[in-house]
Amino acid sequence: MQTTPLEHSWDELPHLIGAADAATLGGFFDTMPLGEAAHAISRLDVDQQRRLFEILDPADAAHLVEQMVGIQAAEMLDDLDPGVAARILHELESDGQADLLASFEPQDAEAILAELAPEEAASARLLAEYPADVAGGLMSTEYLSFPVDSTVDRVIDELRHHAKTYADYTIQYIYTKDRKGRLRGVVPLRSLMLSSGQTQLAEVMIANPLSVSAETPLEDLEDLCNRHGYLAFPVTDSKGCLVGIVRRAAVQEARAERADGDYLKAFGIVGGEELRTMPLVRRSSRRLAWLTVNIILNVVAASVIAYHQETLAAVVALAVFLPIISDMSGCSGNQAVAVSMRELALGLVKPSEVMRVFFKEMGVGLINGTVLGLLLGLLAGWWQGNMYFGLVVGAALAINTLVAVLIGGSIPLVLKRFGIDPALASGPMLTTITDLCGFFFALSFASAALPRLVG
Amino acid sequence: MQTTPLEHSWDELPHLIGAADAATLGGFFDTMPLGEAAHAISRLDVDQQRRLFEILDPADAAHLVEQMVGIQAAEMLDDLDPGVAARILHELESDGQADLLASFEPQDAEAILAELAPEEAASARLLAEYPADVAGGLMSTEYLSFPVDSTVDRVIDELRHHAKTYADYTIQYIYTKDRKGRLRGVVPLRSLMLSSGQTQLAEVMIANPLSVSAETPLEDLEDLCNRHGYLAFPVTDSKGCLVGIVRRAAVQEARAERADGDYLKAFGIVGGEELRTMPLVRRSSRRLAWLTVNIILNVVAASVIAYHQETLAAVVALAVFLPIISDMSGCSGNQAVAVSMRELALGLVKPSEVMRVFFKEMGVGLINGTVLGLLLGLLAGWWQGNMYFGLVVGAALAINTLVAVLIGGSIPLVLKRFGIDPALASGPMLTTITDLCGFFFALSFASAALPRLVG
Repeated sequence: MQTTPLEHSWDELPHLIGAADAATLGGFFDTMPLGEAAHAISRLDVDQQRRLFEILDPADAAHLVEQMVGIQAAEMLDDLDPGVAARILHELESDGQADLLASFEPQDAEAILAELAPEEAASARLLAEYPADVAGGLMSTEYLSFPVDSTVDRVIDELRHHAKTYADYTIQYIYTKDRKGRLRGVVPLRSLMLSSGQTQLAEVMIANPLSVSAETPLEDLEDLCNRHGYLAFPVTDSKGCLVGIVRRAAVQEARAERADGDYLKAFGIVGGEELRTMPLVRRSSRRLAWLTVNIILNVVAASVIAYHQETLAAVVALAVFLPIISDMSGCSGNQAVAVSMRELALGLVKPSEVMRVFFKEMGVGLINGTVLGLLLGLLAGWWQGNMYFGLVVGAALAINTLVAVLIGGSIPLVLKRFGIDPALASGPMLTTITDLCGFFFALSFASAALPRLVG
Repeated sequence: MQTTPLEHSWDELPHLIGAADAATLGGFFDTMPLGEAAHAISRLDVDQQRRLFEILDPADAAHLVEQMVGIQAAEMLDDLDPGVAARILHELESDGQADLLASFEPQDAEAILAELAPEEAASARLLAEYPADVAGGLMSTEYLSFPVDSTVDRVIDELRHHAKTYADYTIQYIYTKDRKGRLRGVVPLRSLMLSSGQTQLAEVMIANPLSVSAETPLEDLEDLCNRHGYLAFPVTDSKGCLVGIVRRAAVQEARAERADGDYLKAFGIVGGEELRTMPLVRRSSRRLAWLTVNIILNVVAASVIAYHQETLAAVVALAVFLPIISDMSGCSGNQAVAVSMRELALGLVKPSEVMRVFFKEMGVGLINGTVLGLLLGLLAGWWQGNMYFGLVVGAALAINTLVAVLIGGSIPLVLKRFGIDPALASGPMLTTITDLCGFFFALSFASAALPRLVG
């Protein structure tokens, strides 16, 4: 049998790990096709992963960590001896370090920090303390700053002498500061290049540059990126001293991660990200935690049916339509949730504008409720040969569609206003309410029209 | 009544538009708090928007377009006179131009292109033709390239002489090419700075640099960004000639947009993005298109109930549990869908690995099915005082949970393999199948145990 190069590489990896040859292993991953590294590692068992990262040169290991999915890298590093993990962490950039440390249990993070040089540990600890979605959590501390009266030659000399250290810095700007360390200006690398050697930075810098505080939220950073073409924004503390830089790419990446997170949460992956390489019990129990809440909410909603059992016994055909009404209202409501989530994320609607959304959804609810109600009502009436039956089913779906879009549109705004994560809670709350209402409408309309239905 | 600065700004905007003072309007948006511009514009009616962009200086208008949400900007530009739209488009960078042009109807795009300079139009037309999720669709054509034997001084001279033109270029690399225009190397701006003026680019360049083709998909570009720290990747054609550059930030932004799109699609916003400022009929009909498909699928699934009406008439209490079984199975299945979607996006699973996912989900399905089945079964049995009833309900939920996670986990992979968008189709297909199976299990178990249930 012919093996493709891909299968070939896969087969080899466990052997290479067995041979424990750091150089070969490092080279192996460098020559892998794009996107294969994370995949290949995820096919190793926990022991093989641990061996692999113990064998690899720390710089190669760090390079591999950068190619892995965040959660995958965090799980793997957490399994390593703290000393090994620290050596790998040391090779990462400050923002990458902070992201990983923030995802460990506090005692695991401390064990690794204890193995780092005190200065590096202090800096990493500081960054890891900020939430992931503010400038402090996104910033990196690899930047270059010089006194404002330095000459261009001095800066170029410094760059030349420490070329190796700075090779990892993706430098686009030189920052200038006054004697007290306060940010005074920004010099794009290009301006530096176009200036004569004796020029002082003060002459070429953009003075009083735009800067953000460590608490600036992701939404505002996104907006800054849209408003300005800059590749990085300086972060200053309350005294105006430079503490780090936030890169444009870090903002975009955080935005992508938030969108991914919202997707997972909306689908009930809420206890943290799941990969299928994680232990079965953890995957299962995390999913169950959310399902258990849901089953309770479902029972509450279905109790409306239990309450109307006599009506249902008289008109059993209605039982066919209850799940349809429940599901369709959920669908209509979820569309409105999605639009609200999107508008919130884009800053096009504010949590206080519930009434505006309410009225905007009312039009959609009236039209779509009417169309869907007519469709299902006609089908139900025709099937039972009883137009009153169709009227009960159609009216219930029509009214409940309106209810669903009104609630679906408003609920993310209301939850956000109360500080509850709308990606997490909107779905279950919406379906509970729409199920309750849908069952109530259908069964109470049927109760009212009972003589016409059982004629 | 005191007005906050925010409300104040809002009130003013229509007046400013009425006064038609381009300079004041331009300044007004510059001083707006972060995130307010897109929001303020979305509160204007269509006529006011059109007036605003007609009045504004094209550069200011372009700056505002960059702060707007893509779809919002596209709708607005589409309403403008092609001449006005072209002048604004001219001020945008090439990748921004292409994104907007791609979102117009072909004839509208052509009308605008006809107003641009022929060369610019040809370049924009070329970029707009690539799909948005490959290197060609993400690249920009603002880059600097020089013959490989140019001296550093010559490059610096060029930069100095065209400082104004290049001010908009976010240059980090200078590309070198041979006589036939083929990409030969990359010179980071920093290397240029550290070299003497007479040095030839060939001596400082990174030779045979990494480059991608215009067809390179987003996933591979993401992986390149993870693997290398570069801020941009050159894009070459089949002859090896440089045709553009893909910036790291553009890759991250596209990734965020894909995640957003998947979120919207999964919730049934499928005909294109929706903003509440769009016309009611369009919003309503787009949502309806998806709902109509869903109602048909729902009717198909519920027909199983209709078929078992006699059983249901004998055990009406079962009608209380059918929506619970349907909804809970949907939840369990959607969790598995979300994990598969995520692993697909991260490249941790390949569409061909259905069996692997199947077995990974089986464990979760067995555990969670058992727990949920026990919970609901005990409740049902206790409520009806009949443990056979509980057994019917519990077994149906347990088995259907297993079915749901198996299908939920596999379906995105299978759809992807057949070239169907899994974000779009996974949800409706999953719930149809799980509803069908759930109703079937519950009702056929009940039929089988009927004598025990109606005792």
